[in-house]
Amino acid sequence: MSERVQNRELKAKIMSADEAAQFVNHGATVGMSGFTGAAYPKALPTAIANRAKQEHDAGREYGIRLLTGASTAPDCDGVLAEADALSFRMPYQSDPVMRGKINDGQLNYQDVHLSHSGLQVEQGFFGAIDVAIVEVTRITEEGHLIPSSGVGNNVEYLEAAKQIILEVNEWQSLNLEGMADIYRVPYLPNRTPIPIINVGDRVGTTYIEIDTTKVVAVVETDAPDRNSPFKPFDEVSEQIAGNYLDFLEGEVAAGRLAYDHYIMQSGVGNVPNAVMAGLLDSKFENIQAYTEVVQDGMLDLIDAGKMAVASATSFALSPEYAEKMNREAEKYRKYLVLRPLQISNSPEVIRRMGLISSNGMIEADIYGNINSTHVAGTRVMNGIGGSGDFTRNAFASTFISPSAAKGGAISAIVPFASHIDHTEHDAMVVITEYGYADLRGLAPKQRVPKMIAIAHPDYRPLLEEYFDRALNNADSFQHTPHDLTTAFDFHNRLNAAGTMQK
Amino acid sequence: MSERVQNRELKAKIMSADEAAQFVNHGATVGMSGFTGAAYPKALPTAIANRAKQEHDAGREYGIRLLTGASTAPDCDGVLAEADALSFRMPYQSDPVMRGKINDGQLNYQDVHLSHSGLQVEQGFFGAIDVAIVEVTRITEEGHLIPSSGVGNNVEYLEAAKQIILEVNEWQSLNLEGMADIYRVPYLPNRTPIPIINVGDRVGTTYIEIDTTKVVAVVETDAPDRNSPFKPFDEVSEQIAGNYLDFLEGEVAAGRLAYDHYIMQSGVGNVPNAVMAGLLDSKFENIQAYTEVVQDGMLDLIDAGKMAVASATSFALSPEYAEKMNREAEKYRKYLVLRPLQISNSPEVIRRMGLISSNGMIEADIYGNINSTHVAGTRVMNGIGGSGDFTRNAFASTFISPSAAKGGAISAIVPFASHIDHTEHDAMVVITEYGYADLRGLAPKQRVPKMIAIAHPDYRPLLEEYFDRALNNADSFQHTPHDLTTAFDFHNRLNAAGTMQK
Repeated sequence: MSERVQNRELKAKIMSADEAAQFVNHGATVGMSGFTGAAYPKALPTAIANRAKQEHDAGREYGIRLLTGASTAPDCDGVLAEADALSFRMPYQSDPVMRGKINDGQLNYQDVHLSHSGLQVEQGFFGAIDVAIVEVTRITEEGHLIPSSGVGNNVEYLEAAKQIILEVNEWQSLNLEGMADIYRVPYLPNRTPIPIINVGDRVGTTYIEIDTTKVVAVVETDAPDRNSPFKPFDEVSEQIAGNYLDFLEGEVAAGRLAYDHYIMQSGVGNVPNAVMAGLLDSKFENIQAYTEVVQDGMLDLIDAGKMAVASATSFALSPEYAEKMNREAEKYRKYLVLRPLQISNSPEVIRRMGLISSNGMIEADIYGNINSTHVAGTRVMNGIGGSGDFTRNAFASTFISPSAAKGGAISAIVPFASHIDHTEHDAMVVITEYGYADLRGLAPKQRVPKMIAIAHPDYRPLLEEYFDRALNNADSFQHTPHDLTTAFDFHNRLNAAGTMQK
Repeated sequence: MSERVQNRELKAKIMSADEAAQFVNHGATVGMSGFTGAAYPKALPTAIANRAKQEHDAGREYGIRLLTGASTAPDCDGVLAEADALSFRMPYQSDPVMRGKINDGQLNYQDVHLSHSGLQVEQGFFGAIDVAIVEVTRITEEGHLIPSSGVGNNVEYLEAAKQIILEVNEWQSLNLEGMADIYRVPYLPNRTPIPIINVGDRVGTTYIEIDTTKVVAVVETDAPDRNSPFKPFDEVSEQIAGNYLDFLEGEVAAGRLAYDHYIMQSGVGNVPNAVMAGLLDSKFENIQAYTEVVQDGMLDLIDAGKMAVASATSFALSPEYAEKMNREAEKYRKYLVLRPLQISNSPEVIRRMGLISSNGMIEADIYGNINSTHVAGTRVMNGIGGSGDFTRNAFASTFISPSAAKGGAISAIVPFASHIDHTEHDAMVVITEYGYADLRGLAPKQRVPKMIAIAHPDYRPLLEEYFDRALNNADSFQHTPHDLTTAFDFHNRLNAAGTMQK
């Protein structure tokens, strides 16, 4: 098995995860690989969690500050949260146990734009990085690292860390080699243009070069990435996907989009996968993705000959598709480029590409402010992720969501968003199963009827009622009319009675 | 005087403003030069306003859709608003008469990120551009336009418009020639990297090339740019400036900034000018500005040998400094570059520069969400301008404001921002006369004591009281605790009693 560690110096550092965990001390700031259930270290998190339990049982403090690419999986964020092994987390998470600890106030979490996270590490906003823990597919003779199923902030963590622990995961296909394109923007003050002109351009190396003298441990693993399976599409997802395709057709009709030049960015989830399924039967050809993660639907589009290339930082594949990728990596690597997060989510490259972004949301308000993160303003779900990077720099930005959740108790369209992650200056098109609200070129009040038209019918009268009250409120000016005394009534009803309905 | 129109074909099109206004018909979408009181057309707005009055008096409809670079002046936005000559306005304004019409609900206004505005015109989000009306310093023999005191979206409007009206303003110094650097990002799908590596790089032409056959009128003018004079610095402005400099010194101490490598972006106003005055006596040398507008304080820094170069899209000079610029343009053009707004505010270039942004605000909430635009959530003041372009892409972003306004009736720190233009993911440092709150690397709750510490002392107990209530609210989760039933009490008190105080 240690054939995957070809560098002699590093081969000598092979040890067990428990031994390696001894390098991860209380108070350490740890930069870890891992992005949406892919490429996270499979052994160290459990070993660190065990160490934390031992330390706590012995009455000693133990907590580390954990920085990653984005979310990971139950055997990473989950076990660490369960063991109370963390004192701080950034830039994104989606684990139920961890989310619970954050919402209980037990764990400090900073929710950071993903394109900022590596930069902020480099700039020292999180202090020194003590240890980097990074999963790789193999280590070459020269000591170069071949990334596994994601890149994320690995380059930044490996550069910044005082010590490095590598996990070499036998489960990852050796045929992933060649998929990664590792390009490093020079440090300030010497930054230069990112030379990517086309989605599939390769401008870097297929490996990460490191200072091998910083490596203190190499741990061998053989464990799968763990993303959640997607649910089968329901009717609502398919209606939303249909409306999204109508919007795309509208762009073609307006002369802004050609059937053979659609560049997509897509958030993760069932609705985006329904959109991709819809694209299979559409007139769009030669589809490209400049996006954050490779999803099941993209592999289907590749298989169908509809997608020419996808650039991302990581996979977010269901278990079935992750296995498929492992079997057919040699084929897929012709179509896929995995980039560092600073590049996959780069405002510079995103704006250059002229892509159409599509991200989920928790709620939007009648003026087009978007809440991506907090239910009823206080309960954080996952985080903003890369949605801000893409929304702000897209040719056109869309947000998609079912119009209601929890059996109708929660409306996705509200009078005033209870947390704002994307402002009225950013969201261009909002899509539900009832249609799409095209807010481009409109003043705030002009957007309101369009937003109400895509709300769930049960909530339209309540939204009309609010807007009327705002328009007639003597305290309110008329550019963005509001009645601040009742702006959060939807959320207050939800808190008090379990439903936003009256 | 028509020596400034050297192209024979265009010389033949010289006419009066009233004659030229006949090309601007009801319903037209007009792209106009003008940015922060500089470079706006001086004659056509009044002529259009007069035409509107005549049409209205004759019982006919008349309204145009006006797009510019940013705000203009009383003899542009002011006269047009006064005459009800507009039906739509974008992307920014600051005129009191216009603001009144917008807040009365008489005028639709879309407040757009300035770096998006030209792109969105190019992408057709505002429909066809019927007429471009652009002020220039002179027209060359070849028919090239020499920009006057600002560039803004002129390139986009001149390209997109069906017809062009040029104003040649004798008041503008001929020595402005050479200051502009006109670089055009190719249209999609052929966009390429913007080749600017250093603040002062010149990568384009000193003139704008146009299709001269589209020019329907040339109007000669001789009238000054009109920016408001700045007020003398008061004690609060000087304290804020002092705190800003303390923050900069902290960055130097942290090893993130060198005394000879500070690149600034600065919003407009008295506090920014106080900051620049403070820089005169600081240890910072070789200061550079990659910013939106050239301000008085920058000329002082140049004169003092402290500023090496400033890149902007326009001037925002007081009348005194505008005259000084006109007299000494030959000297200043060695230090100044005027770029198209798409370049001055480009996320790509801003992120590359690693600048520190500094913008004003109306209010910030305890978690670091920023309201830049709406008093008490409904009364729009000016607009977001370029603050989002710079904040999102800066090395470090700061927001500066006195802690209170209107004699203490309004607190700049509130429980929940009543309009959010920059999210908790974006604002890094908030500065008042009481210090600076460094929010970097902090979870929401960790930011609260820092924000309360820079609030006006009169409001600190009320903010503590709110945060306690949020922490103890059984309905609230503890990542971002809130009590939505009282989140807007500060604003509701202001509406009801004229003060946020209890």
